[in-house]
Amino acid sequence: MKYAHSLEFSVRDYECDMQGVVNNGVYQNYLEHARHEFLQSRGINFAEMTVKRINLVVVRAELDYRDSLRSNDRFIVRSNIQRISKLRFEFSQDIFRTPDQKLVLQARIIGTSLNHRGRPFELHELSKLFDD
Amino acid sequence: MKYAHSLEFSVRDYECDMQGVVNNGVYQNYLEHARHEFLQSRGINFAEMTVKRINLVVVRAELDYRDSLRSNDRFIVRSNIQRISKLRFEFSQDIFRTPDQKLVLQARIIGTSLNHRGRPFELHELSKLFDD
Amino acid sequence: MKYAHSLEFSVRDYECDMQGVVNNGVYQNYLEHARHEFLQSRGINFAEMTVKRINLVVVRAELDYRDSLRSNDRFIVRSNIQRISKLRFEFSQDIFRTPDQKLVLQARIIGTSLNHRGRPFELHELSKLFDD
Amino acid sequence: MKYAHSLEFSVRDYECDMQGVVNNGVYQNYLEHARHEFLQSRGINFAEMTVKRINLVVVRAELDYRDSLRSNDRFIVRSNIQRISKLRFEFSQDIFRTPDQKLVLQARIIGTSLNHRGRPFELHELSKLFDD
Repeated sequence: MKYAHSLEFSVRDYECDMQGVVNNGVYQNYLEHARHEFLQSRGINFAEMTVKRINLVVVRAELDYRDSLRSNDRFIVRSNIQRISKLRFEFSQDIFRTPDQKLVLQARIIGTSLNHRGRPFELHELSKLFDD
Repeated sequence: MKYAHSLEFSVRDYECDMQGVVNNGVYQNYLEHARHEFLQSRGINFAEMTVKRINLVVVRAELDYRDSLRSNDRFIVRSNIQRISKLRFEFSQDIFRTPDQKLVLQARIIGTSLNHRGRPFELHELSKLFDD
Repeated sequence: MKYAHSLEFSVRDYECDMQGVVNNGVYQNYLEHARHEFLQSRGINFAEMTVKRINLVVVRAELDYRDSLRSNDRFIVRSNIQRISKLRFEFSQDIFRTPDQKLVLQARIIGTSLNHRGRPFELHELSKLFDD
Repeated sequence: MKYAHSLEFSVRDYECDMQGVVNNGVYQNYLEHARHEFLQSRGINFAEMTVKRINLVVVRAELDYRDSLRSNDRFIVRSNIQRISKLRFEFSQDIFRTPDQKLVLQARIIGTSLNHRGRPFELHELSKLFDD
């Protein structure tokens, strides 16, 4: 599979819980950070959008946990994006441990853009993200 | 809808991000805490399980974000559980803001129990959770 | 010792790290939440201040870790505040496990108010906090 | 000033709070991660210690917040360590924003090692950390 964006991380020990593995909620942090770096690489800055009162938000997240990450693990978040309707876009994000490329998590994150009144609208800057 | 367990929370300001709303990853923390309290109320202690090297883990999470929580909001996490196979169980968890009962998030969390070798097994204590 | 404000909490399992105790960074979250509730109880709303571009910020934190909190522990954060200069105020915050009242952490948190240009200034609303 | 260890980070947007800056509690996460990488670079693995039921713990933290980090900032945590008694060691940790080298935070973190009964003891592996 080809991905439009990849970002490497290391597990930080404070992210591990009493089971000795990365807590299941932390993966959403990893995925969010990878998405924002992806957007940034295409010229869309999340913080600047926020200051302009344009909020990019998640409307649905699906996460399949295939394996666990542990202390000292390194991993890569690989991401693709596609438009799924006029107002919604979908990120496919997979996490692979390195160097063995073990698949750890698969996610589908659906988002939209909200204007300053909290209403979904078509953000034209996002067209930079779509290859079509 | 009837729920088997309810737990009330308040938003804490450190949970809010630069958009001024609870960050989307934080909801998994709320849901996890509610599940562990639910298990505890039925006599299953998550930390004791962990010490015995029985790990209750999430294998899939689906989250539908319906609205945002903000500073000073109070909310209730309401949960149900059902067995979906010999080895898997599913929590349905809904978050409602109080006092207006606005639906904020709907989640379906599928879990299993892993033994000390990381293999799924049927944890008999869990039968306390199922009404059948 | 007399405290001006007290707030009860429960440890949440996602706050515990691989040592099975609350991670040392999490205590600052507890302390912040207790401070904001303290301010709120005196009519000062942190989020409203932020919207007005008045930022209450921590300039120094001293934390003495006396004991650990664990899964299922309950605890109380007790707080006092005093003015230490025209521009600075100091919270004394102690955390006690309940019900045995074991002292877990002692903290001294020094803060100031910044105006919209990031400059310290004397926020008159804070006088509600000081008994003198 | 000379430092024994340096580690570069980027701010992640989920670490920023409603003020648009890194939340004050998050700095302890950065400092912990830098300390664990420092230990690792000297052959001391925090997770392996934990499995052996040797707990390296913080007994006191002093943090001076000099400036704020924001979305998109990069920064370096620079660390030194010295023994301050038979049982206690002290990390000096400074955070500098890059590339302008603005000092953001100065910290002094005092730690000790606890054996499996929770008693402080002299961990001989730590001698690898001290230059004397």
